[in-house]
Amino acid sequence: MSKKIVIIGGVAAGPKAAARARRCDPKAEITLIEQGDFLSYAGCGMPFYIGGMVKEHQELMSTPVGIVRDANFFKNVKDIDILSRTRAVKIDREKKEVHLVNLNTSEKSCIPYDKLVLATGSTPFLPPIPGIDLQQVFVLGSLNDAVAIRTAAAEGARKIAIMGGGLIGLELAESLKSSEYDVEVYVIEMQEHVLPGMLDPEMALLVEKHLIAKDINLLTSEKVLSLEGNNEGRVQRLVTENTSIDVDMVVISTGVRPNVELARAAGLKLGQTGAIAVNEYMQTSDPDIYAGGDCVEGINLITGKPIYTPMGSVANRHGRIIGSNLAGGRETIPAMPGTAIVKLFAMNAGSTGLTESRASHMGYEVISFICPGPDRAHFYPGNNPIIIKLVADKKTRKLIGAQIVGPGDVNKRLDVAVMAISMGATVDQLANFDLAYAPPFATALDAMTHAANSLRNKLDGLAKSVGPLEVKEKLDRQEEFILLDTRTPKEYQEVRLPYPNVIHIPLGQLRKRSSELPKDKEIILFCKVSMRGYEGQLLLENEGFNNVKFFEGGIAVWPFEVDTTKI
Amino acid sequence: MSKKIVIIGGVAAGPKAAARARRCDPKAEITLIEQGDFLSYAGCGMPFYIGGMVKEHQELMSTPVGIVRDANFFKNVKDIDILSRTRAVKIDREKKEVHLVNLNTSEKSCIPYDKLVLATGSTPFLPPIPGIDLQQVFVLGSLNDAVAIRTAAAEGARKIAIMGGGLIGLELAESLKSSEYDVEVYVIEMQEHVLPGMLDPEMALLVEKHLIAKDINLLTSEKVLSLEGNNEGRVQRLVTENTSIDVDMVVISTGVRPNVELARAAGLKLGQTGAIAVNEYMQTSDPDIYAGGDCVEGINLITGKPIYTPMGSVANRHGRIIGSNLAGGRETIPAMPGTAIVKLFAMNAGSTGLTESRASHMGYEVISFICPGPDRAHFYPGNNPIIIKLVADKKTRKLIGAQIVGPGDVNKRLDVAVMAISMGATVDQLANFDLAYAPPFATALDAMTHAANSLRNKLDGLAKSVGPLEVKEKLDRQEEFILLDTRTPKEYQEVRLPYPNVIHIPLGQLRKRSSELPKDKEIILFCKVSMRGYEGQLLLENEGFNNVKFFEGGIAVWPFEVDTTKI
Repeated sequence: MSKKIVIIGGVAAGPKAAARARRCDPKAEITLIEQGDFLSYAGCGMPFYIGGMVKEHQELMSTPVGIVRDANFFKNVKDIDILSRTRAVKIDREKKEVHLVNLNTSEKSCIPYDKLVLATGSTPFLPPIPGIDLQQVFVLGSLNDAVAIRTAAAEGARKIAIMGGGLIGLELAESLKSSEYDVEVYVIEMQEHVLPGMLDPEMALLVEKHLIAKDINLLTSEKVLSLEGNNEGRVQRLVTENTSIDVDMVVISTGVRPNVELARAAGLKLGQTGAIAVNEYMQTSDPDIYAGGDCVEGINLITGKPIYTPMGSVANRHGRIIGSNLAGGRETIPAMPGTAIVKLFAMNAGSTGLTESRASHMGYEVISFICPGPDRAHFYPGNNPIIIKLVADKKTRKLIGAQIVGPGDVNKRLDVAVMAISMGATVDQLANFDLAYAPPFATALDAMTHAANSLRNKLDGLAKSVGPLEVKEKLDRQEEFILLDTRTPKEYQEVRLPYPNVIHIPLGQLRKRSSELPKDKEIILFCKVSMRGYEGQLLLENEGFNNVKFFEGGIAVWPFEVDTTKI
Repeated sequence: MSKKIVIIGGVAAGPKAAARARRCDPKAEITLIEQGDFLSYAGCGMPFYIGGMVKEHQELMSTPVGIVRDANFFKNVKDIDILSRTRAVKIDREKKEVHLVNLNTSEKSCIPYDKLVLATGSTPFLPPIPGIDLQQVFVLGSLNDAVAIRTAAAEGARKIAIMGGGLIGLELAESLKSSEYDVEVYVIEMQEHVLPGMLDPEMALLVEKHLIAKDINLLTSEKVLSLEGNNEGRVQRLVTENTSIDVDMVVISTGVRPNVELARAAGLKLGQTGAIAVNEYMQTSDPDIYAGGDCVEGINLITGKPIYTPMGSVANRHGRIIGSNLAGGRETIPAMPGTAIVKLFAMNAGSTGLTESRASHMGYEVISFICPGPDRAHFYPGNNPIIIKLVADKKTRKLIGAQIVGPGDVNKRLDVAVMAISMGATVDQLANFDLAYAPPFATALDAMTHAANSLRNKLDGLAKSVGPLEVKEKLDRQEEFILLDTRTPKEYQEVRLPYPNVIHIPLGQLRKRSSELPKDKEIILFCKVSMRGYEGQLLLENEGFNNVKFFEGGIAVWPFEVDTTKI
């Protein structure tokens, strides 16, 4: 008799598991249950649909050649039965059946299974504040939500507040601001910086600077207390601890929670993060029940601890592994570094592994370096800067995190970091990979190679450096020290740090003019990207100065009172 | 007493070694000897300078902030003495000194060393044919050559033949064709395909198709017999075995040879490739003499055999390692996969590791797969196709080669392959890395993930496939088989394979209409990218067909009689 496979959830992991199971087991009876209207759609595309960059929501449910993945498609092409608008309400593990309700007819039924898959996804988190149920307050959890948000913008919402400055919140902010509608966009983030968990503060500051330059009204460290409505019950004001904003639409984007009710009621084990616990084969505590996608937790490659990563890419990997294993395979999901990337106007920002803050917080002895550079040969037209921050374990010299931001090609370097972390490379190894080079694609020593070498110099005690935030704190405390600008007179003319303790000596003159500097004061050098700052540090040390360092990234990454667009 | 470091060669590895040695050893006396006029320039930028994309040749010798790296720069900033226009004519290893000649004054001198570095580079190979010494026949070996070629184009050369369809020859062809001059460009390659050693034939064919579409006159499998001149000794005709071309300028780009005369005369060991042999510390057979850049050979990571890779990226890595070791370090150069990438008009082409042809030739039992796909979410505007060919060792399942071509983002995926090969990843591992994903940057399962999964399917016997060349050979032999096109009627309407044995049944109808197909004939399925071809193979097998397969890449990579720009 053929195997009965039942899959609950029709967005990403579910359809992928179904399709893969079909390929591996042509005889299985496969049924997919979905409570919503839409099947197998690209949830990650929703922000782009809302802003109109993706014209029709059908594009998010189509194959690359434009075939819509509806129930007919699954039946005819893949011989998979679809029960849509159907909710799974209970799993009977003893009888091995799932209780169903048809949401159109309220009809109840049961479906037996040999193997069951939970791909129940996640639900947007709703903060417990008054006014959350007003009209024109949206979440972005499903394609229906996306259609509703786009419709509201089309119907005239012009002052839009987005609660939450994470990946989706910021993508949505960009998309709405770039749409055909002339909207004011507010982003309100409770944490000190946007993209919390993904970027360290000095890197997040660079993203924030860009968002502000693109006319996004950004409020960080702001807790929303309530939403207030008008007489018709439509939202008209958002109130925080410090201010209030007139709005005619609010989108709540404060993260998602895994849908685990079915699993919990069936007695399946939940993990530390609250999501369903699965083993490396993606099996729940019941070996006949698999789970994948936004409803499960994974393992962080570096810490070995559970992590919750509700991402489309992860869900698709889960789906394939589950599909193989449903058909008798033994495929395993590896622990992962946790990778994210986002495009925000002309700025790209990516992160993998641990941030420095998180790694330090977890007790790692870390060392980091911030290194800006062009993404391709500086003489090749169209080159753009990227700023790489590498984080390594001081003892093992292994890379444990990377953050990359900038208008340049972040994408390529982020995957190099993903691969390095995943394969356990040290920064010494990272410095010598035979990466792709030609002037249109990279610099002769790629930006990642350069960043790795810089971090090695710091690890080896050759480079003595501090980050921009430490310098800013020293300035704010009005400490006595010299900020030594080693750039050319032309560069100094164009833009400079506006602090009284700045001295300007171009690197080419520093050897001759070092006697102008006091030996008893701390000197912190910098240039555009602090390469000359580093050379200057070595030069001054050789001249007998013993309290010199440079600040990482130079003026190019100074996130404070400087218009770095002029650099 | 301070260490005397002498470095011969001032382009890439030499200056890098000098600068790094200075940083690691502030007291050393460092002298750099260069016979040419220019120091520390980006040789890889020369093709772009010739076409005018890089405006001034000085840009190739400048730092990213526009400081020209001349002798003053090296002295003032780095305390490195430069002897320019000076040739090293002999190394006296017993006395530890180098004999020099000043090329301006013919004055002879000697310079003592404690440590010596050979960064003597390479010289363009000149094929032994008549007419090679005619006027308007150029090589591209130095910045002087680049200036001469650009001047010749500016002065009216309009029919330009490039001998050699390798990386530099093709970059030069693009650059000249894209320049402000209305030139006819011929590329003559002796081998069967362009980019030999870098791409397998079916991948090279795609590049060739693009070059031809961009009006490059491409002659492959053509051996140049002679160049003929006019009365004034200017080249006017290029004669091959099969044809002759009127030309008014010829650039010879048939590879380079390492400059090893100094080393050979000094009794230093040369390697199998003819370049200087070095150990992992970049020391020659004399431990006080290091060598790096285009004059040395490296080790191929996969074969363990010597390879000669005269690349700017490699030279820079050599330079840093030598610089560290001159100052007492013990840095090592790893074996490398051998990576190359090139932009040709709207097409990018990259390769790392072994091609399938080369690996088979060397006795590896290989398995490969060709997999096209979009470089970012198919609904995200501006997505472009890339075509990935992966080559794996059948026994170990390790990735040993990757070739990627297409208008899309080849760069990112090539580095993923470089990292996978360098770290010894299997294709199973490659399929589950947590690569960067968001719709503007990738597909939910990245093209590389998808390619790796496809190759796993083939390795596991699930996918049964052949490459496009095998299909073409069957067609040419007029074998009896069915080419089953599983695309939609609309796709079939737009473009189709023009062969009589094509049958068209869309995948969605295949389950119902399989009885229309004969069970006793070989059936080769395809679609746009052969995903549906693969599904069709599985479907037909399940219906009792036992001689079905699909051809890899589908119509999207069919390099023959189809206008794939319409797909």
